[in-house]
Amino acid sequence: MKVFGGIEVGGTKIVCVIASGPDDIHDEVVVSTTTPEETLPRVLDFFSSGVPGALLSAVGIGTFGPLDLNPSSSTYGYITSTTKPGWSQVDIAGEVQRALGVPVVLDTDVKAAAVGEGTWGAAKGLDDFIYLTIGTGIGGGGVFGGKPMHGMIHPEMGHIRIPHDIKKDPYKGYCPFHGDCFEGLASGQAMQERWGQKAEMLPPDHEAWELETHYIALALQSYICTLSPRLIILGGGVMRQSHLFPLIRAKVRLFLGGYVRSPLVLDDTEEYILPPALGNRAGVLGALSLALTRST
Amino acid sequence: MKVFGGIEVGGTKIVCVIASGPDDIHDEVVVSTTTPEETLPRVLDFFSSGVPGALLSAVGIGTFGPLDLNPSSSTYGYITSTTKPGWSQVDIAGEVQRALGVPVVLDTDVKAAAVGEGTWGAAKGLDDFIYLTIGTGIGGGGVFGGKPMHGMIHPEMGHIRIPHDIKKDPYKGYCPFHGDCFEGLASGQAMQERWGQKAEMLPPDHEAWELETHYIALALQSYICTLSPRLIILGGGVMRQSHLFPLIRAKVRLFLGGYVRSPLVLDDTEEYILPPALGNRAGVLGALSLALTRST
Repeated sequence: MKVFGGIEVGGTKIVCVIASGPDDIHDEVVVSTTTPEETLPRVLDFFSSGVPGALLSAVGIGTFGPLDLNPSSSTYGYITSTTKPGWSQVDIAGEVQRALGVPVVLDTDVKAAAVGEGTWGAAKGLDDFIYLTIGTGIGGGGVFGGKPMHGMIHPEMGHIRIPHDIKKDPYKGYCPFHGDCFEGLASGQAMQERWGQKAEMLPPDHEAWELETHYIALALQSYICTLSPRLIILGGGVMRQSHLFPLIRAKVRLFLGGYVRSPLVLDDTEEYILPPALGNRAGVLGALSLALTRST
Repeated sequence: MKVFGGIEVGGTKIVCVIASGPDDIHDEVVVSTTTPEETLPRVLDFFSSGVPGALLSAVGIGTFGPLDLNPSSSTYGYITSTTKPGWSQVDIAGEVQRALGVPVVLDTDVKAAAVGEGTWGAAKGLDDFIYLTIGTGIGGGGVFGGKPMHGMIHPEMGHIRIPHDIKKDPYKGYCPFHGDCFEGLASGQAMQERWGQKAEMLPPDHEAWELETHYIALALQSYICTLSPRLIILGGGVMRQSHLFPLIRAKVRLFLGGYVRSPLVLDDTEEYILPPALGNRAGVLGALSLALTRST
C-alpha cells in the first residue's frame, strides 16, 4: 500500500501525518517547534518508523517562510532569513529527503493550504483561486492555471498597501516593514494592539469588525483585480468569526463597483468568498496534498 | 514557408501583420477601427490575400476587452460588454477562425504585449513577469509559470485600490467605477483632468511627476507582494517619459521597506523595472507571438 507524508511546520508546533488521503490517516504526531536540531530528528523518527505494510511514496512540507523555491538556487529548499530564532538557513527539504530517501515537495504554509483546498476542499476542481489566512499575521497563496503560483520568490500577499483614512482610523499599523500595509492594519496582532484584546475575544457587535471587514474587502478587491481568481478562501484565527463573511462579501461588491462583470462576483458572492472546507486541518492536509503532486 | 498572423485591435486602429518573427515581417496593414461590420472584412481580406509562397499557420489577436476567455462558455472568444460602440458581443476569434480556417489565439492587448516581451523582448527566457501599460487607461497582464495568467475572467490590474492622501492630493479620481483607484488617480485621462494638459506635454520638472511616480510605485508594491514577479515592464504613453523610471524604482524600494529579500528588488532595481524592449511594436508583435504559441 502506497502512503504519503504531510508535515505542517508552524511557529509553535509541527504536525506530521502518514496517510493516503484526508479520510485515511494511518498515523499522526505533534512535535513542539524548538530548535531544528531538536525538532527535526523527532519528525524524521516518526516517518522512519512508518506504518506496517505501507510504503512511503513522497513527503509534502508546508512551512512558515520565507523559503527558497528556486530550483536553480544553491539554497533551494531552505527556510531562508526567518525571524524565528535558529531556523534561518535550514535546509529543511534536503534533510527530510536525505533521511527518508523519498521525493519531497516544499512550499509555504499558505500555498500548501491552498493546494489542499484544491485537492479535497472548497476549491476542488478549480484551476484559479486564492487562499488567504488572516491570523496573527496575514498570508496568501494562489493556484493559477491549476498550479501553485510561485513567482520569483513567493507572494507576500499580506503586505500590499491599501487605502487608510487616518482621520477615521488613526492607528499607525503594526507591520515593522510597512506600518499600515494590510497586515499592519488588519492582522490579529494589529487588532490586539488596537483594541487591547485578542480578536477572538471581541464580541460580534464590537465596532472592530466594521473596520476589519472594510480592510479585508479592500485587500480582496486588489487581489480580484490583479489575479481574477475563481474563488477566494479565507482562513486563519480571525476568520473563525463566521459573521464576518456576509460583511466582507457586501463590501467587496461595493468596492468593485460593478466592474468585474461576473454573476459570481456581483450576485452570488456567498459562493465566491468562503471559509476553508478543511478547517483547522487545512495546514497538515495541505502539506499532505503537496506530496500527492509527486505521486506517479 | 510557414508564416503567422498578428492582429492588434485598438480603439482607433487595427494593425495586422503577416510574419515569421519580429525581424521578418512579410506584409502589414493598418485599418481604422470603425464598426465591426466595416472593419473586420478589411482585416480578413488582408490575411486572405496572403503572401505568395507562404502558408498561414495561425493567427493571434490582442484586443481591448473585456473578453470571454473561458473555453467552456458559449461566448468564448467574444469581446463582451465593452464601452466601445458597436463592439459588444462581437465573436472576434470565431469570425477570424471561420474566415481563414486556421487556429486563432485571442487575448487582451496587455496580455499579448506581455507574451511578446517574453518571446522576443525584455522578458525573454523568464517565466514570471508582468507587463503594465500606463496610457489613457491602465492595464496589466502577467505571465506566470511560463503561461499567460487568465484567472476567472482576466485581470483588471489598473483598478486596484491604493492609498490616496486627499489632504495632499484632493483630486477625486477619474474612474467611473471606483473614483480614486490606481487608474482613476494615475492614468493619462486622470493626469489630463488634474493638470489641464496631456501627460505627454508636461515637462520633466513638473510637479505632476512626483505624484504620478508615487502612485505607480504604490501599485507596483502591491503587484510585487501579490505576484512576486521576476520582472516588471512598464509601457504605454505616460511611460515614454523615461525620466520616470529612476523615480519609480527608488520609490518601490522605499515602499517595500526591505521586505522582499531579493538583491534584484532591493539593489538592482534598474534591472527589475524596465521599459518594453519592443517599444510601440509591443502590441502587434505581442499578437503575433500569441499565434506562435499554436505553432507545431
